[in-house]
Amino acid sequence: MGTFQAKLVTIITEALLEQELTQRLVELGATGYTVSDARGKGHRGVRDAGWEHGANIRVEVLCDEETANHIAAFVVENYYRDYAMVVFIDTVEVLRENRF
Amino acid sequence: MGTFQAKLVTIITEALLEQELTQRLVELGATGYTVSDARGKGHRGVRDAGWEHGANIRVEVLCDEETANHIAAFVVENYYRDYAMVVFIDTVEVLRENRF
Amino acid sequence: MGTFQAKLVTIITEALLEQELTQRLVELGATGYTVSDARGKGHRGVRDAGWEHGANIRVEVLCDEETANHIAAFVVENYYRDYAMVVFIDTVEVLRENRF
Repeated sequence: MGTFQAKLVTIITEALLEQELTQRLVELGATGYTVSDARGKGHRGVRDAGWEHGANIRVEVLCDEETANHIAAFVVENYYRDYAMVVFIDTVEVLRENRF
Repeated sequence: MGTFQAKLVTIITEALLEQELTQRLVELGATGYTVSDARGKGHRGVRDAGWEHGANIRVEVLCDEETANHIAAFVVENYYRDYAMVVFIDTVEVLRENRF
Repeated sequence: MGTFQAKLVTIITEALLEQELTQRLVELGATGYTVSDARGKGHRGVRDAGWEHGANIRVEVLCDEETANHIAAFVVENYYRDYAMVVFIDTVEVLRENRF
């Protein structure tokens, strides 16, 4: 059983961004993504420093480090200021190559 | 693009605990949390050592190590004995400071 | 507060596999699992090398390394070829022993 290291990029953000964000992820090199519905509370960018409780999505992308960096730079530049969004990156072992 | 290390605390437990638990998380220092619905099977505390298949939630909190330890100590003390609950902690890289 | 290291095996696959897959996970030694609904895009095995957007599930199993390896070997052997599936493994700290 072979595994290889990859980056797991998790983006938690507002549900309204799903279509636009996932399209951008593919353009940035993601060969796949997973979206699940979530709800939560957190700071909502600079538009509103207070608490917000709303419909969120949790988007996960498995990719190489370079793509992870592209995605990170893109979302910080384009969304982090104006949307409720938090992005975190972990390193995981993925089963078998050439499948994502 | 700056990142900083944080703890990702994941709590998988019974859905009925959502409101109480998330309120406690905020009181314990969490500046945000994400909840998603789940289902599953597992041991149900000491009330019932057998299998239980029911409505679960998956609660995630990104926080510093001290807050993670407070949360961990609290849930073990208050819920671990009586509810189906498993808590695990991972270290992740979070994009940009002062956003959660 | 005690923790111990465990493997978190995450399987993202087609929703139609839920019942069969979770039954196999238990047979392979998992003492619990968590399933949540998801949607996504990715390669769909060798049946179809193109993009597929459909109903997915995200299955998580916390287990020891040996069980993780059994699960990994089993799913690669039985599902990886014919189903949209990606499996990744992470190491996490779990609160308290003898609870999963």
